[in-house]
Amino acid sequence: MNQLPHFQFEITAKSTGTAARLGRIKTPHALIETPVFMPVGTQATVKAVTQEELCEMGFKIILGNTYHLYLRPGHQLIQKAGGLHKFMNWNGAILTDSGGFQVFSLGDLRRITEEGVMFKSYIDGSSHNFTPERVMEIEGAIGADIIMAFDECPPHPSTWEYTKEATRRTHDWLCRCKASAPGGHALFGIVQGGVYRDLREWSAEFVGAQDLPGNAIGGVSVGESKGEMQDVVSWTAPLLPEEKPRYLMGVGTPVDIIDFVMMGIDMFDCVLPTRLGRNGSMYTTYGRINIKNAKYIDDFTPLDPECNCAVCRNYTRAYIRHLYKAGEILAARLATYHNLYFYQRVINGLRAAIAKDSVEEFRRDFMSKYAADEE
Amino acid sequence: MNQLPHFQFEITAKSTGTAARLGRIKTPHALIETPVFMPVGTQATVKAVTQEELCEMGFKIILGNTYHLYLRPGHQLIQKAGGLHKFMNWNGAILTDSGGFQVFSLGDLRRITEEGVMFKSYIDGSSHNFTPERVMEIEGAIGADIIMAFDECPPHPSTWEYTKEATRRTHDWLCRCKASAPGGHALFGIVQGGVYRDLREWSAEFVGAQDLPGNAIGGVSVGESKGEMQDVVSWTAPLLPEEKPRYLMGVGTPVDIIDFVMMGIDMFDCVLPTRLGRNGSMYTTYGRINIKNAKYIDDFTPLDPECNCAVCRNYTRAYIRHLYKAGEILAARLATYHNLYFYQRVINGLRAAIAKDSVEEFRRDFMSKYAADEE
Repeated sequence: MNQLPHFQFEITAKSTGTAARLGRIKTPHALIETPVFMPVGTQATVKAVTQEELCEMGFKIILGNTYHLYLRPGHQLIQKAGGLHKFMNWNGAILTDSGGFQVFSLGDLRRITEEGVMFKSYIDGSSHNFTPERVMEIEGAIGADIIMAFDECPPHPSTWEYTKEATRRTHDWLCRCKASAPGGHALFGIVQGGVYRDLREWSAEFVGAQDLPGNAIGGVSVGESKGEMQDVVSWTAPLLPEEKPRYLMGVGTPVDIIDFVMMGIDMFDCVLPTRLGRNGSMYTTYGRINIKNAKYIDDFTPLDPECNCAVCRNYTRAYIRHLYKAGEILAARLATYHNLYFYQRVINGLRAAIAKDSVEEFRRDFMSKYAADEE
Repeated sequence: MNQLPHFQFEITAKSTGTAARLGRIKTPHALIETPVFMPVGTQATVKAVTQEELCEMGFKIILGNTYHLYLRPGHQLIQKAGGLHKFMNWNGAILTDSGGFQVFSLGDLRRITEEGVMFKSYIDGSSHNFTPERVMEIEGAIGADIIMAFDECPPHPSTWEYTKEATRRTHDWLCRCKASAPGGHALFGIVQGGVYRDLREWSAEFVGAQDLPGNAIGGVSVGESKGEMQDVVSWTAPLLPEEKPRYLMGVGTPVDIIDFVMMGIDMFDCVLPTRLGRNGSMYTTYGRINIKNAKYIDDFTPLDPECNCAVCRNYTRAYIRHLYKAGEILAARLATYHNLYFYQRVINGLRAAIAKDSVEEFRRDFMSKYAADEE
């Protein structure tokens, strides 16, 4: 399925000392250089920025959350608009998750069977049913370039026994997704297996064998340690087909992204840059800073002295701190823009380094300045 | 004082059937075509839009609120930043009000004497004292192009006796402001007098006689009817010096602006376009619409079919309605941008009409489409 006209992936360069690789994904809406970071547009908007701004920052693909879009505004409305691209006027590519992660996070509000998951809406308490077939139908209506299979993401920690059961169900559901997937969209499978090496290896083999356009590693960044996350990726990534893109779902910090690119991951998404930005935490070359800190009261320098983004060219830490303290919307706007731009800088730097086969040097340089991830 | 190098005003055209006039204000930061609408940047930001966007929409002057800026971030910090223009990176002109309106709205939190007003901060309960001299010092530190005199704005309704007392105090304070005004900023006086013709005439004569660079009509839009507001302007505007700009504070709707331009007003400010936008109420050529209305669920047309703004070119009513229902920041951004752009269109249309001496025709055309001010 890799060479279907609506989805192509090619590897254009490989790092020698690491598993990092440079590639290119082609979808109906974009040519995407990998490694790539995908901003999260949960409710048909990447919070606080416009689609024009995402484009201006060079993002080619964003994420939409099937669960949220299904509940509001509803997939039928999006279909009526001509799909999510038209609904939100985003001319790049879109990837939709399957809603699995959100639905399984609902705790008492959901019930799992072999058939699928019953859950209640957090908006109005109404009852809903997600099955692999239903999710394929919904994702088809939303119309993303890349659609994720419906999986079960068990909470952390879960027992080996439960995780095995969830992984087996995820595999069954993947086959049902594959059988019912709408045409014209690239279906990615998702590896589960928690923090258990045998289950992860089993899942990677099973999912990889489905010969789908791409493969994802799910069930990470759900509360396990960074060491556990690295173990999971180190067991899983090498077993996934080399010639298909590998997507590590929900990850991560800038340092995570560098580390996992070096382990052979091509695609990332994470709410950190947008969520932290709205909370006043900003990425800089020298580490993350909390702009609400009193020491920035009269700091008339840019957020990041090494950054050339529209925010750093125009506004100071003192001004942005004031906007936060005053509860102004502009604070969230400027912070989100800057943080997303920072992620783009890291990813662009990584790509340039892979092309020059100097990714380890890039990591050393980055870490020598990036003192701390929190202030 | 009209021809001081830091402030110039010239009238470039006059309407024959009405009192409307076309003019040009020159300040250290901008050449401002009048009639002009000034977006309100209360806390050193016009809520939800960037300074670059204001510039892109053609705004040349914005308003800052001395009371808010004094309390947060403080005028000393703004002075340390090099003034409000530098602090917020706004390269156009700025007008600061005197804080009078806000302070007098505090009710039990303030006490008026001949000397000035004692009040408590809404942020931390601390005690503060505004006198004419102190306000001039604060406005000087903030550093706007145009600074407003400290006045007493009595609530509506107030008795004739009380209003007379407040008007007399406003006149005394104007003289004290004039005596202590910082150099390099254009001081405007403010006419008070409530809804009483004799007091308004007295105040207009007194304020006009101070020969300041410009004159404002205050104490309107405080709860009186549109008819009362029109009466006040009709008594006052003709008594204010012809060759100085006339500023009607805190006004108003698009129709108000058209009407008061025809009565000889040159400058306006109002929170309506920004505040209503954040609440989901959008201006269109055919009247104001409430985007949260169910009928827009699947309306894939722009907010205003006649509008060419970045929002109307890119986004639909259905999408913006979804953003509101989902509580997304982008809703406030898009609505604010569109509503401010609408005000610019009205003002630009008015200026073109005055130049062609067809302002009455412009009003007829506008009103023939603009069915209602609320949906």
